[in-house]
Amino acid sequence: MDTVIKNGTIVTATDTFRGDISIKDGKIQTIAVNIDPGNAKVIDAEGRLVLPGAIDAHTHLAMPFGGTVSSDDYEAGTRAAACGGVTTVFDFALQTKGEGIIETAQRRNKICEPQACVDYAFHVAITDLTPKVLEEFQTAVDYGIPSFKVFMVYKKEGLMVDDGVLCKILKKSKETGALISVHAENPDLIDLRTEQFLKEGKTSAWYHYLSRPEFVEAEADKRAIHWAKSLNAPLYIVHLANKEGMEEVKKARDEGYEIYAETCPQYLHFTSDVYKREDGRNFVCSPPMKGQESQDALWEGIKTGDIATIATDHCPFQSYEKDWGKDDFTKIPNGCMGIENMYPYMLSEANKGKISFNKVVELCSSNPAKIFGCAPAKGTIVPGSDADIVIYDPNKDFVVSKDNMHSDVDHTIWEGTELKGYPVMTLSRGRVVFKDGEFLGEPGWGKMLKRRRK
Amino acid sequence: MDTVIKNGTIVTATDTFRGDISIKDGKIQTIAVNIDPGNAKVIDAEGRLVLPGAIDAHTHLAMPFGGTVSSDDYEAGTRAAACGGVTTVFDFALQTKGEGIIETAQRRNKICEPQACVDYAFHVAITDLTPKVLEEFQTAVDYGIPSFKVFMVYKKEGLMVDDGVLCKILKKSKETGALISVHAENPDLIDLRTEQFLKEGKTSAWYHYLSRPEFVEAEADKRAIHWAKSLNAPLYIVHLANKEGMEEVKKARDEGYEIYAETCPQYLHFTSDVYKREDGRNFVCSPPMKGQESQDALWEGIKTGDIATIATDHCPFQSYEKDWGKDDFTKIPNGCMGIENMYPYMLSEANKGKISFNKVVELCSSNPAKIFGCAPAKGTIVPGSDADIVIYDPNKDFVVSKDNMHSDVDHTIWEGTELKGYPVMTLSRGRVVFKDGEFLGEPGWGKMLKRRRK
Amino acid sequence: MDTVIKNGTIVTATDTFRGDISIKDGKIQTIAVNIDPGNAKVIDAEGRLVLPGAIDAHTHLAMPFGGTVSSDDYEAGTRAAACGGVTTVFDFALQTKGEGIIETAQRRNKICEPQACVDYAFHVAITDLTPKVLEEFQTAVDYGIPSFKVFMVYKKEGLMVDDGVLCKILKKSKETGALISVHAENPDLIDLRTEQFLKEGKTSAWYHYLSRPEFVEAEADKRAIHWAKSLNAPLYIVHLANKEGMEEVKKARDEGYEIYAETCPQYLHFTSDVYKREDGRNFVCSPPMKGQESQDALWEGIKTGDIATIATDHCPFQSYEKDWGKDDFTKIPNGCMGIENMYPYMLSEANKGKISFNKVVELCSSNPAKIFGCAPAKGTIVPGSDADIVIYDPNKDFVVSKDNMHSDVDHTIWEGTELKGYPVMTLSRGRVVFKDGEFLGEPGWGKMLKRRRK
Amino acid sequence: MDTVIKNGTIVTATDTFRGDISIKDGKIQTIAVNIDPGNAKVIDAEGRLVLPGAIDAHTHLAMPFGGTVSSDDYEAGTRAAACGGVTTVFDFALQTKGEGIIETAQRRNKICEPQACVDYAFHVAITDLTPKVLEEFQTAVDYGIPSFKVFMVYKKEGLMVDDGVLCKILKKSKETGALISVHAENPDLIDLRTEQFLKEGKTSAWYHYLSRPEFVEAEADKRAIHWAKSLNAPLYIVHLANKEGMEEVKKARDEGYEIYAETCPQYLHFTSDVYKREDGRNFVCSPPMKGQESQDALWEGIKTGDIATIATDHCPFQSYEKDWGKDDFTKIPNGCMGIENMYPYMLSEANKGKISFNKVVELCSSNPAKIFGCAPAKGTIVPGSDADIVIYDPNKDFVVSKDNMHSDVDHTIWEGTELKGYPVMTLSRGRVVFKDGEFLGEPGWGKMLKRRRK
Repeated sequence: MDTVIKNGTIVTATDTFRGDISIKDGKIQTIAVNIDPGNAKVIDAEGRLVLPGAIDAHTHLAMPFGGTVSSDDYEAGTRAAACGGVTTVFDFALQTKGEGIIETAQRRNKICEPQACVDYAFHVAITDLTPKVLEEFQTAVDYGIPSFKVFMVYKKEGLMVDDGVLCKILKKSKETGALISVHAENPDLIDLRTEQFLKEGKTSAWYHYLSRPEFVEAEADKRAIHWAKSLNAPLYIVHLANKEGMEEVKKARDEGYEIYAETCPQYLHFTSDVYKREDGRNFVCSPPMKGQESQDALWEGIKTGDIATIATDHCPFQSYEKDWGKDDFTKIPNGCMGIENMYPYMLSEANKGKISFNKVVELCSSNPAKIFGCAPAKGTIVPGSDADIVIYDPNKDFVVSKDNMHSDVDHTIWEGTELKGYPVMTLSRGRVVFKDGEFLGEPGWGKMLKRRRK
Repeated sequence: MDTVIKNGTIVTATDTFRGDISIKDGKIQTIAVNIDPGNAKVIDAEGRLVLPGAIDAHTHLAMPFGGTVSSDDYEAGTRAAACGGVTTVFDFALQTKGEGIIETAQRRNKICEPQACVDYAFHVAITDLTPKVLEEFQTAVDYGIPSFKVFMVYKKEGLMVDDGVLCKILKKSKETGALISVHAENPDLIDLRTEQFLKEGKTSAWYHYLSRPEFVEAEADKRAIHWAKSLNAPLYIVHLANKEGMEEVKKARDEGYEIYAETCPQYLHFTSDVYKREDGRNFVCSPPMKGQESQDALWEGIKTGDIATIATDHCPFQSYEKDWGKDDFTKIPNGCMGIENMYPYMLSEANKGKISFNKVVELCSSNPAKIFGCAPAKGTIVPGSDADIVIYDPNKDFVVSKDNMHSDVDHTIWEGTELKGYPVMTLSRGRVVFKDGEFLGEPGWGKMLKRRRK
Repeated sequence: MDTVIKNGTIVTATDTFRGDISIKDGKIQTIAVNIDPGNAKVIDAEGRLVLPGAIDAHTHLAMPFGGTVSSDDYEAGTRAAACGGVTTVFDFALQTKGEGIIETAQRRNKICEPQACVDYAFHVAITDLTPKVLEEFQTAVDYGIPSFKVFMVYKKEGLMVDDGVLCKILKKSKETGALISVHAENPDLIDLRTEQFLKEGKTSAWYHYLSRPEFVEAEADKRAIHWAKSLNAPLYIVHLANKEGMEEVKKARDEGYEIYAETCPQYLHFTSDVYKREDGRNFVCSPPMKGQESQDALWEGIKTGDIATIATDHCPFQSYEKDWGKDDFTKIPNGCMGIENMYPYMLSEANKGKISFNKVVELCSSNPAKIFGCAPAKGTIVPGSDADIVIYDPNKDFVVSKDNMHSDVDHTIWEGTELKGYPVMTLSRGRVVFKDGEFLGEPGWGKMLKRRRK
Repeated sequence: MDTVIKNGTIVTATDTFRGDISIKDGKIQTIAVNIDPGNAKVIDAEGRLVLPGAIDAHTHLAMPFGGTVSSDDYEAGTRAAACGGVTTVFDFALQTKGEGIIETAQRRNKICEPQACVDYAFHVAITDLTPKVLEEFQTAVDYGIPSFKVFMVYKKEGLMVDDGVLCKILKKSKETGALISVHAENPDLIDLRTEQFLKEGKTSAWYHYLSRPEFVEAEADKRAIHWAKSLNAPLYIVHLANKEGMEEVKKARDEGYEIYAETCPQYLHFTSDVYKREDGRNFVCSPPMKGQESQDALWEGIKTGDIATIATDHCPFQSYEKDWGKDDFTKIPNGCMGIENMYPYMLSEANKGKISFNKVVELCSSNPAKIFGCAPAKGTIVPGSDADIVIYDPNKDFVVSKDNMHSDVDHTIWEGTELKGYPVMTLSRGRVVFKDGEFLGEPGWGKMLKRRRK
């Protein structure tokens, strides 16, 4: 027994109870009404919640995009993760033309491995579906990479797959047990509207929103769901941000289809109004924040169980990079900070009474673990699972500021956000990697997960 | 430490993991990768599943009905419960005219207390909503009885409440935190159709079904949901058995309303075809089993999460009593056996691959515990909760027969049903009350629960 | 050839064209590009619309109600009808206990026949479904009375039929080709809420609305539709006034069921806000006017074709009678004026561009004629049909006032309503019964229709 | 007065009545109970129905496609039209790259004008949306061409417009009062599936169906409707042939959107089973016939009013051309005969009791006339409208055969179809162009319509 967390209120996706937890060799050993720690290190959690570490199933670390690279490299990103209660990070490994699936993951892993401060995994984004790659699906699944992503946008950038390829991939995923994630927006409409706005001299951040508003995202949601239903393949929609898409997800799930929707904290907290702000460009990400109706629909989807997961789409850029688009929204690198904000924000919302703490654990930890094949090692608190644990003080008030964040970024869209309650400690496989505002981990600690979906 | 359950696979509503459980003073003390039992009694669960005991939220023990009394008294009923893995029984206490809520519960408790072999609680069925009773809602909730039932049928029998009374009760329940259960069927249609069939000499059990077919139940489901939605009050529909009602529940839940639907194993396993059998009268209960489409819809509702709970409506009668209606279905006492069959049947379905074991635990144990206010003492396996535990052998085949059941009834509708896997042990607050087919408990052991819904 | 209407623009439910119409022996003889009138009387309709006379399928003339009798007797009511472009009036004949269907109609016809200024028919309202009455359905249909009505409200008043009786009637109507109309509101809820308001001293007209708000009407709509769908019987819902009911109608029609919804001009023009007015009691009718959302839904239903007809529920009372309820809304006789306002109001709305003139003809004339079995004699302009014709001046502005109405009532809820365009002439079977604001008809002219639905 | 049609039963979209019709200078002059013909030619229609001529809003005459040209040129096609009761033909004029809208119509008109045996109009199919063409929308609408078409398929063939172009066109159509028709199928899926089948050696006509089954058409329906709703632009979907698309149309119409769906007689009569026949290739058209569920949904859509029009997609090829694809379904020229079958088939269905004759007139004549801007000159029977009239003998049995058809095609998919009732005469602007099986018209008689939608 290395460590004992005593006197906390343990919260899982379904249960809330007082109890002690002992940890040995990075794993949870015992959960009990009372544990005598003996010589073990004691962490007193009296008055605190003891939660499974969060899983951020959607990040873009060190990602080349828009003529630069996202500001958080694997070290900074996973450091910020640890400090935000995220103990597992899923990053996207983008296939280059001709590359194999495992090859893609390994290429990125070489960069990630020495830097990772918490555990991690890769979704491989498929951009070039050669027959060889299609063949490799089963191998990749067996290898422990059972989740791929495709883009329904970024046509000009060469990332988009057309409907035929999307359907081929969905069909193959169903056969092999993989799960396909889609970035669903309609490229033609975005191009059309963007071109028009530029022609009319409408270049502020507000037009980023208007170039890809609700209905442009919704169309792609509906189309992706249509194919998934038609092929009876499971589907995971990343960063869902609009009402009509939410309704289509709900309908499909009611009909019994295996459709998962992920949304992000920025869509739950901000609306498109942010793009009217002086610093609107800092909020530019794709899909953009939407109107109030969409935000309400997402919260409603959380309550009805139709939102399966929360993740961040973490992909921040420095202010000077965001400034490139001061006079032309198309020049703003797309993406915002979120990895350190997700769990604190969602737990704060629970603490304020909007949803239950159990629901937050379900959305941010248990569900992504199950959906992406790393439960019960991750995503819950049971004997034998990894000791990825967050201790949360419901009485600690916190105001987000770039100064108390741990990314390598010079600003945050969450600046000034007032949270009720905040994590005071994060353990990654039993090791304290964050405590009272301070990062205590180290690069190279994190390990890549091998996963099994079924 | 009194007892240690070793080497089992523990299954909760969300997790499945190997672990040991220690029990002390009737409560779960420790859950761990490995527990050294010391002097404690050891139960070896190697190769078995270790599950929370089931909660049967719907029984009618020793209930006067149809000119007789249901065959299982509290002793027999709770004995059968224990032998079927049910560790908590919710019985209905029927208010007599003028009686108070707590008074009603206490009257029944006097009979139940000396007989109960497992823990129990009462839903009080309100049949006479005097101003005094309406006043008493808050008192009853505070006392630990936060769940009431009303009948939308049995007009002639004087049990029915009209829509005005139903709405009054729903409104009050919302204000006081109580939850209202409804038996939803339309009395006028039942009377109309029954009268017609009798006039036409159509008196076989098949006409019991036809006197209250799908649309007669569905109407009342829709009406109850309409009122609950209009008043924004929570609602629990007991023994839902038809497709159209299921769809209305689904729609209401999608819209964000707090509507719970309970169904019963008989509706999941049998269809109305049973009423064409020679012994059709033995299957007579209300609502009757419905057609295949309804059964499919119920299973679909389980998968989409729109069925919240499974319970039994256990209310068996002896063959000679059922025979009263050999030549006139209206003379058959309504009700069937189920308390000992629910958990084994549902677990067998999981074992055959239809749903997950976690889902069965959720439906039969965790959800009723939460909905009716006895979690986490009941309905899960965490340190501090009551040691109500079922040990289940997934490899033990079992064929149901009246001879291996533990009720005081001379037949069972489940006769001949082949189950894959079966419970081999039940613990009630740490005490072994059932083992390898044999009842080991005793009357008077069970305690009445005081509950809190929120 | 007796009369020629020249140079008008003829408007039917589907066509709009310039043409002349010749009339002989009360019937339309010829419709042509140009008719040489010879010696016939010429009506110049240059610049005017020539429309089929309206059919008011819902009136209560000389009806005993609320301790008095509705103010317009058959003479006054049909006089007002003629002056409002209504050439056929459907009145309700209320069965007294034990009475036969045809007997009921004949009893009322004795009063009506000598007074009627335009043609008329009776719906017989069934309040006492004896076996004899059920038997008489076919006879009544064959006799020419193929439409009956039932009340789902007025329980205490002894008019209500319960669900069993309603279903019996629906089933029989399907077998015999009759059509059942329902007044759909929930009596229990009305009683409950009324009692409560009175107890709380809430007695103004506003509480009339709140005693039977949207959801109280909607429930009965849903229930009636449920039964009609379950029995696959046609159904006609009178005076639909709420959004949720409208949606249920729409859904049922989409599914292919023969469900007709009627609404009234008062629901299209006023909202429940009128009940806050000083003279709110004058607007008291049942169902009451509803909120803006309901009004919008009704107009939407008109556009989508889910509202089948417009009728008036004409049932006015004198001011002094309305005053009975000054201090207690339950004492206000229910009902308002409408028979003279419907067609002018709807045509004015068309003239303002809200809907087409063809649509108004469809709703107010062609559809009721077809649905209730008097097409093509009524409801259209074709050779051979009755010369029931309205000439409408789209350029004549008109402000409604009790002084320019032709009822025997001392006030009107439509006082001050500004209309764009107004009827300048009405012909009943070729006879001019209204011209330029003046009634030119006579009691006893109107004939009772014998109808065939199929 | 040139001609009088006497004693017939006149059927319009709303009315059915006995009457005579006189015709002068190609127009209907008088409709009357009785017309004294004087010296005019008399057509005795005793025992017959007198109907407005049908409008076929969808034909491809003399159309280059699949390496050949559709078999019916304008003469043969309009001759067959006349013999099938079609008095107005809408052909598609396909824009070549760079061409203007009016220019395109005029180019085709040069070919059509000398050949046309009945009146006609052009929808211009836009394949190259240059800024100049977008500018020309208003001019074209004002000129009398207010309906354009776009293809969502035929990507490789260069006919397809992408979603951006489609939306641009929809937006412009809304601004100018034009109506956009879409051929909705998904090209990527068709290509994907086709390629796969060919690779697997699956080359029979059955695989034509499977290469573009229900869900492939449905996706494009949903997408087109999504854009139309989002832009609030009217939309006309040609040849709808699947259930899911039908449901989406229904939903959009319920929500109040101006969405029109056209289906074709082949989808109402045949199912995909025809592709299993020896001569399956003769039935190859796009979209292909679908399964029974889709056919049922289309008929249901007719009943609920959600199918707005019936047209033919007439585009026949000779047997030897169809034979090109004997061993490879991709080599079969797409298209079938229909122009002479539509009205007789639909009227026969009415005669058999499936729908009313009025409904057939509405679908095949009145609605297309209104939707495409040629009412009331076309599509109805009123004084002043063109004397485009069909006389129909409900008692004449007819079996379709290539020998009694009037196309220049050597076979017909309708071979052997038994019809109850058949047209015995067609008048085009008062001239008898078809009588008792014989064509009596002449090329050059037909005139191009100038149309106004609003």
